[in-house]
Amino acid sequence: MVEKVENKSIDLKQINIDDRFWNHRINRIIEKVIPYQWDALNDNIPDVPPSHSVENFRIAAGLAEGEFKGMPFQDSDAAKWIEAASYSLSVQPNPELEKLMDELVDLIAKAQLDNGYLNTYFTVAKPDQKWKDFSHGHELYCAGHMIEAAVAYYQATGKDKLLHVVCRFADHIDEIIGPEPGKMKVYPGHPEVEMALVRLYEVTNEERYLKLAKFFVNQRGKDNDFFTNEKTFALGKDDRWFQLDYHQAHDTVRNQETAEGHSVRAMYLYCAMADLALETGDASLLENTKTLWDNVVNKRMYITGGLGSQGHGERFTLDYDLPNDVAYAETCASIGLVFWAHRMAKLEVDRKYADIMEKALYNGVYSGISLDGEKYFYVNPLEVFPKEASYRHDHVHVEPERVGWFGCACCPPNIARLTTSLGQYIYTQKDKDLFVHLYIGNDSTFIIDGKKVQLVQTTNYPFDGNITIDVNPEEEIACGVHVRIPSWCDMYTVKVDGEVYPIDENWNNGYVQINKTWQKGSKIELVLDMPVKKMRSHPKVRQNAGKIALQRGPVVYCLEEVDNGADLMNIVIPKQATVTEAFDPDLFGGMTTLTAEAKRIVDSSQSEDLYQSSDFDVEKVTIKAVPYSLWGNRKTGEMIVWVRES
Amino acid sequence: MVEKVENKSIDLKQINIDDRFWNHRINRIIEKVIPYQWDALNDNIPDVPPSHSVENFRIAAGLAEGEFKGMPFQDSDAAKWIEAASYSLSVQPNPELEKLMDELVDLIAKAQLDNGYLNTYFTVAKPDQKWKDFSHGHELYCAGHMIEAAVAYYQATGKDKLLHVVCRFADHIDEIIGPEPGKMKVYPGHPEVEMALVRLYEVTNEERYLKLAKFFVNQRGKDNDFFTNEKTFALGKDDRWFQLDYHQAHDTVRNQETAEGHSVRAMYLYCAMADLALETGDASLLENTKTLWDNVVNKRMYITGGLGSQGHGERFTLDYDLPNDVAYAETCASIGLVFWAHRMAKLEVDRKYADIMEKALYNGVYSGISLDGEKYFYVNPLEVFPKEASYRHDHVHVEPERVGWFGCACCPPNIARLTTSLGQYIYTQKDKDLFVHLYIGNDSTFIIDGKKVQLVQTTNYPFDGNITIDVNPEEEIACGVHVRIPSWCDMYTVKVDGEVYPIDENWNNGYVQINKTWQKGSKIELVLDMPVKKMRSHPKVRQNAGKIALQRGPVVYCLEEVDNGADLMNIVIPKQATVTEAFDPDLFGGMTTLTAEAKRIVDSSQSEDLYQSSDFDVEKVTIKAVPYSLWGNRKTGEMIVWVRES
Repeated sequence: MVEKVENKSIDLKQINIDDRFWNHRINRIIEKVIPYQWDALNDNIPDVPPSHSVENFRIAAGLAEGEFKGMPFQDSDAAKWIEAASYSLSVQPNPELEKLMDELVDLIAKAQLDNGYLNTYFTVAKPDQKWKDFSHGHELYCAGHMIEAAVAYYQATGKDKLLHVVCRFADHIDEIIGPEPGKMKVYPGHPEVEMALVRLYEVTNEERYLKLAKFFVNQRGKDNDFFTNEKTFALGKDDRWFQLDYHQAHDTVRNQETAEGHSVRAMYLYCAMADLALETGDASLLENTKTLWDNVVNKRMYITGGLGSQGHGERFTLDYDLPNDVAYAETCASIGLVFWAHRMAKLEVDRKYADIMEKALYNGVYSGISLDGEKYFYVNPLEVFPKEASYRHDHVHVEPERVGWFGCACCPPNIARLTTSLGQYIYTQKDKDLFVHLYIGNDSTFIIDGKKVQLVQTTNYPFDGNITIDVNPEEEIACGVHVRIPSWCDMYTVKVDGEVYPIDENWNNGYVQINKTWQKGSKIELVLDMPVKKMRSHPKVRQNAGKIALQRGPVVYCLEEVDNGADLMNIVIPKQATVTEAFDPDLFGGMTTLTAEAKRIVDSSQSEDLYQSSDFDVEKVTIKAVPYSLWGNRKTGEMIVWVRES
Repeated sequence: MVEKVENKSIDLKQINIDDRFWNHRINRIIEKVIPYQWDALNDNIPDVPPSHSVENFRIAAGLAEGEFKGMPFQDSDAAKWIEAASYSLSVQPNPELEKLMDELVDLIAKAQLDNGYLNTYFTVAKPDQKWKDFSHGHELYCAGHMIEAAVAYYQATGKDKLLHVVCRFADHIDEIIGPEPGKMKVYPGHPEVEMALVRLYEVTNEERYLKLAKFFVNQRGKDNDFFTNEKTFALGKDDRWFQLDYHQAHDTVRNQETAEGHSVRAMYLYCAMADLALETGDASLLENTKTLWDNVVNKRMYITGGLGSQGHGERFTLDYDLPNDVAYAETCASIGLVFWAHRMAKLEVDRKYADIMEKALYNGVYSGISLDGEKYFYVNPLEVFPKEASYRHDHVHVEPERVGWFGCACCPPNIARLTTSLGQYIYTQKDKDLFVHLYIGNDSTFIIDGKKVQLVQTTNYPFDGNITIDVNPEEEIACGVHVRIPSWCDMYTVKVDGEVYPIDENWNNGYVQINKTWQKGSKIELVLDMPVKKMRSHPKVRQNAGKIALQRGPVVYCLEEVDNGADLMNIVIPKQATVTEAFDPDLFGGMTTLTAEAKRIVDSSQSEDLYQSSDFDVEKVTIKAVPYSLWGNRKTGEMIVWVRES
C-alpha cells in the first residue's frame, strides 16, 4: 500500500504569487488571454475563425437556432475557460468577469438534458449517437473538463450551480457505465474524465465518483470490441498510428511499461493513475505509474519537457526517437506532464518529479504562448528552419511562427488554466510536512496542526538561484519544511536562521528536510549555484549526436537567427568554450542571455559546388542564446536548441 | 543555334562490353532479372503480387476474359521488358528469349484497336475515358514506352512488327493532338512520349513525330485548364505537392529555372528538351536545359546522384533541402538523370555531364538492385536506421531492406533496360570526333569517314584508375579521340603511344582532346589517381553540416552496422584521420573497402539519463566503409553515408 498520509490539496486562496518572472505572465493571462478567449468563444474576434463554443450551448439550450459547429469537443473550450477564469478570481477578484462566468454557467445549465446529459455536439448534431463513439466522440472528455470547471468555479466563488450540473451529469454516467451488470463496460478514447471524477470526489466526498474513475482506468484495454468496432475508430483501421495504442488501450494500464500513443491522452491517463494510487493506496498502480514515468523522462522526452515525436497521431514513437525539426511536442502534452509530475511529487518524495515539472513549465509549456499573450504554438519543435518547415510535407504540423488561434484550440485555454492555478504547484503538504517544489516568489498560508503558518518566498528565480523563505507560524510549531535541490544544481548551500544547515544528513531524495521548531521570523536561505551547463543527450538519440544544448538553472536556451544570422547549423561551439551569462534589460522585459565564442563557416569560402573535397574556412564568432520558451517573439527565423560541438 | 554536327547514335551492336565491374551486373540482368521479370509480367512468381501486365494485353486482345488489373500504366512494364530484352540480344543472342518477345509483340499487336489506339487500361477498363485523363492516366506515357520498346526491338532483331504498331499509334495520336485547328491542345502529366517520339523520328525519319514531340514540350504549362479540370487532377486540389508543378506544368518549359515536382517526370521532360535542342538546334531550349541542369546538380541532388527529397509527391522540394533519412531518391529518377546527362554530353563538350552520369550510375542507380539481382529499392535514402524507418510515419516510403517486386514496378525494368544498353553511354561520336565518357572495358567499332575504327578499352575501373585504349583503324585515319578526366581526379597522366601527352594545351572542358593520325596499334594510356576523398556538402545543406562522405573515384561509400556495430551516429572521423583503401576478395565478389581510425562513444560511459552535462568517454575504433550501392546486401541494419567529422 502507498503510504496513507493526508495529502492536502492546495487551495489557491492560500497562495499569493508575487514574482519577478511570473507576475508578468500571470497578468498577461488575466488581463489579455482570458478576455481574448471570452471573445473567441463568443465568435467576436475579426480574422479569427469563430469558435462557436458559446453559440453551441445557446442552440442546445433552445435559445438560438442553428447547427452545431466546431470540433466535437468544442464544449471543452468553454469549460477550460471557466476553469481558468475561476482560478484567476483567486489571484485577482473581478466582479465583471465573474458575471460573465455566471451567465455562461446559467447557459450551460440550460443546455443540460433532463436526464443529466450535457454535451452540445451530441445534443444538437447527433442526438441519436450518444454514447456510441467512445474512441473519438470526446463525450467523456468534455464531461471531464466540465467537472474540472465546476470544481474550480465552486472553489473560487463558492457558487455550486455548475457543481450540481456536473454531479447530475456524473450520476447519469454512473447509471449507464460501470462494472455492474447491465451497465456499459466502456472507457473513453481521450482520458480526462478520470482525474476530473477524482476531483469531484474530493469536493463532494461521493465515493461513486471515485469508483467510476477507477472503473474507467481499470477497464481500459479490456473487452475492446466496443471500441474497435466503432465507426470512427474504423477510420483509422489501416493506419497503424491510430490503433489501440493511440488511445493507450493496447493493454490494461497495469501491463503498460512504455508510453504509447497520443501524448496528451497518455498524460491525462497517467495523471488519473497517479490520482487513484494516491486516493486508494494502490501500490501496484503506483509502481506501474513509476515505470511509465521512467520510460517517458528517460527515453521519450525532449529536453524542453516536450512530448510526442510524431505529428501523425500527435504521439509517442520509440525510445530515443526524438527528432528536433519534426517534433510534435504539443503544448498540452507538456502541460499534462506538469499535472502528472505534480501528482507524482505528492506520491513520493523524490526531486525527479518536481525537476521535470519545472523543466516542462519553464520550457515546453511556455514556448506555447507569445510574450504578449496573443499568439500560440500548438507544436513546439526544437529546431525550425522556416523555409523547410513551411514547405515540406513531413513538417506539415510545424508552424514557423505562433498563430492567433486554432480551429482545434485546446492549448491556449490549457495554458491559461495552468498559469492562473500556478500557486497549486509550488508546494505540497503531507500532514505536518511542507514540500517546496518550485521557487516562485509568494506569500502563502498553511494550516498545520490547526495553526496558521505563513511562508514568504523571495527570489529572482530563475534569473538567479538565491531564495529566501521566511517561515512565520502564528505561534511556535514543530514541523518539516523540505526544500528541493534541483538536479541541475551541483553547488548549493542552505542556511536556517543564518546558520549553515547540514545537508548530507538531511538529504531525502533531493529534498533537504528541515525539521525544527519554527518561530515567527524563522528564515531559510537557499543558494543554488546556477552556472550555464552544456547538456548532452543520451548517445542513442541520433539527432543530437555531437551536439549540446545550453541550459542555465531550469531554463533551456536556443539560438535564433535574429541574434546569430542564418544557417545556424554551421555554428560550432568548441569543447573548451566558456559560455557567459549576461543580463539584457531591454530584451523580453529583462532577460538573462548567454554568449559564447564559437566558430562558423566563412560565407566567402563557399563555392557553388554542392559537394567538394576541400574544407571550409571558419571564423570566430560570438553567439548569443536566449531562453527557448521565448523564441519567435521578435521575428520569423531559424531556431535551434541543439548546437554542434567540436 | 546549337552547333549542327552529326551526333551519331551509338548502335549497341557496335559495343562489346567485357569489364570486371560490369560483366557480373550485365549477366545478372540477362540471366536472372529478365527471365524473372518475364515471370513477374506473366504472374508466375509465388509470393509476389501478380503484375497482370501480360494478362491485360490478353484481355484487350480478346484472347481472355476478365477485368483489367494493376496500375493504369501497367502496359509500360511489358514495354520496358521488351526494351531491356531487346538490348540484351545485342549483348548475347538468345533465340528462346526472342521467341517470347515475338509472342508478346504479336499479342500487343492484337490488342491494338483499328484506329491505332493501344492501351489496355483504357481499352478494357475505361473505354469511354480515352484521352480524358492526361494528368494521371499515363496514356501517352505508356505510348512512349511502347515506342521505345519498338525501336529497341527493331534495332536488335530487325523485326518491324512492333514498329508498325507504334507508328500507327503515333499517327493516331498525331491525328487528334497537335497545334492544328481542331486538334486537342494537351500534354501528358508524365513525360516520356516526347523522347520516344524523337527516337521514332530518328528511326523512321518521319518529321511528324519530331513535330509532335516539339508540340508536347512547348505546350506544357500553356492553356492548363484541360489539365486542372480533370477529375484525377482534382484529387490533389487541396494538396500543394500535387499541383501543376508536380507535373512541371506550372509554367512553360522555357520559363522554368528550377527543378520542380515529381523527379522522374522532371528527368524525362528534361531529356526531351535536350533531344529537341539537339535535333532542332534550338539554342534557347538548350540554354534553358542547362539552367535546369545547374539547378539540379548544384542544389537539388544527393551525392549519390539521387533525386527527389520528399516521399509525398516523389518530388523535388527546395534548394539545398536534402535530408538523408527521408530522401526519396527514386531509382528511376537516377536512371532518368543518366539519360539526361548522356543527352547533355552530346550537346556540349563538358565533363560535368558525364561526371554526373557516372555518379548516378555507380551509386544512386545501382543501389536500386541487390547484388544477386533478386531484390530492389524503389527509394534510396542515404541514412537508414531500421527501427525508425520501419516505424515512423514520415519514413513511410522508406524500406530498410530491398524487396522482391512492387505493385508499382517501374524501377526494376528500368534498371534492366539501362544495364543492357550500357554500351550506349560509354561513347558519343560527333562527325570525326569520338568522346570517351565512361571507363568500362569494351571492344567497339566506329565508322569515321567511312572507315572502321576499333577501340579497345582495358581497365579495372572503378577498382583503379588505369585505363588503356587501343585504337585500331582499319587504315590510317586522322580524327579526334577525347578522353574525360573526371572532376574527382586531381592527378592524372595521359600517354599516347607511350609518350606523355601534353594536357594543358589539349584541355577542353575536362576532356583531353587527342587529335592525331591513328594507326593500327595506337594506344592511349590514362592514369587517373584515385585517392579516397573526404567530401563535404555545400554549407547550406543543413543535414550534412559537420559531416563528410567518403568517395573514391566515382564511388560513394557508406558505413553499415554489419561492419561497424549499431549507433553509427556516434562515430566521428577526426579531421587528420587517413582513410586507407583495401581490397577484400571475399566481399561482394571482390570489392575495394575503406578503413579509417575514428572515435566513438564508449558504451559503458552512458548513464541512464536522457540528458546529462558530463561528457562521454570516447575510444578509438577502426571503421570500415563499403560502396553505397552495395549496402543492404548482407543483413538488415543501420547505414549512413554522411559521417560526423571533428
